[in-house]
Amino acid sequence: MKYNRVYLAGPEVFHPRALELAKMKKDICAAYKLEGVFPLDNELDVDSYLLKHQAGLAIGDANEKLIQSSNIIIANLTPFRGPSADVGTVYEVGYGRALGKRVFGYSNVPQLFESRTREFAGGGSTAADEFGMSFEDFGMHDNLMIETGIVRSGGAMITRAAKYSERFTDLYAFEQCVQLAARDL
Amino acid sequence: MKYNRVYLAGPEVFHPRALELAKMKKDICAAYKLEGVFPLDNELDVDSYLLKHQAGLAIGDANEKLIQSSNIIIANLTPFRGPSADVGTVYEVGYGRALGKRVFGYSNVPQLFESRTREFAGGGSTAADEFGMSFEDFGMHDNLMIETGIVRSGGAMITRAAKYSERFTDLYAFEQCVQLAARDL
Repeated sequence: MKYNRVYLAGPEVFHPRALELAKMKKDICAAYKLEGVFPLDNELDVDSYLLKHQAGLAIGDANEKLIQSSNIIIANLTPFRGPSADVGTVYEVGYGRALGKRVFGYSNVPQLFESRTREFAGGGSTAADEFGMSFEDFGMHDNLMIETGIVRSGGAMITRAAKYSERFTDLYAFEQCVQLAARDL
Repeated sequence: MKYNRVYLAGPEVFHPRALELAKMKKDICAAYKLEGVFPLDNELDVDSYLLKHQAGLAIGDANEKLIQSSNIIIANLTPFRGPSADVGTVYEVGYGRALGKRVFGYSNVPQLFESRTREFAGGGSTAADEFGMSFEDFGMHDNLMIETGIVRSGGAMITRAAKYSERFTDLYAFEQCVQLAARDL
């Protein structure tokens, strides 16, 4: 495990400019003497697998190994296709937390979780969603497990109101996480 | 750590009949000689905290301890407020996986992840969402990190087409997970 290695978790892997965003994040890390590693660094030949299910497992294995080799995670927890963060990223936050990694999170949407979920369920004053299920309200940015993991790991959660169209490309809050991570080393 | 203790992860904590569902799950576990533990078992006095944020962290801490004390996780990964599973549950899957727990997952929606996310983004033939971001397609039930963690832990992912209104209360697939978990002990 390298003590200055940062696993760059986030839904950017699905972005058409994923590799460009990865390079920008790595460059920011390097400016603070940190080494950023990105999920797509694995260089797996996805097409070599007979079944796409097997390719998926191989990517998952490779990402877990990358997290093991890092001591810091900086996770893009911007709401993704719904009121919460990308679940792949959230899995990695939990995984890294259990391994004792320091986890930082950022979101380019500052609206709190309770407000976002209520809005998603269709109304400002509704007390529950269509299944009667309540809205978590602990003044946090997403489900309490995520923010607990981040805080208890010694990391921090940073939010910023980015422009809607730049929600998945704005790296200002990301850089703030990098600054905090570098300061602690 | 108890070798027959199962952490019952899932969004049921938000359900109006949460404690009843917890009891039903525990009874099913007991029928297979397993001990089910539920997040709300913590018996925290949430109102005793000055800030709700502190109460949230205390719940998170307590849930992590419950997972540590278990050797199996059975996670309800039914899509919750969007195309993916509840992120609190997903965090716990990643957390438990990193600690070497055996993780089983179930979903009461058998539609595959790629199809669900495409539908959520608004169209059957669209290649990307409004941010240009692609749809993961590895023939899995949710993000590949989740299913990789489950498969590599020695667990299994089970799906079932429950009635829409019973999506968060149908325990048939849950019981199948319990059967598999009990058989392996």
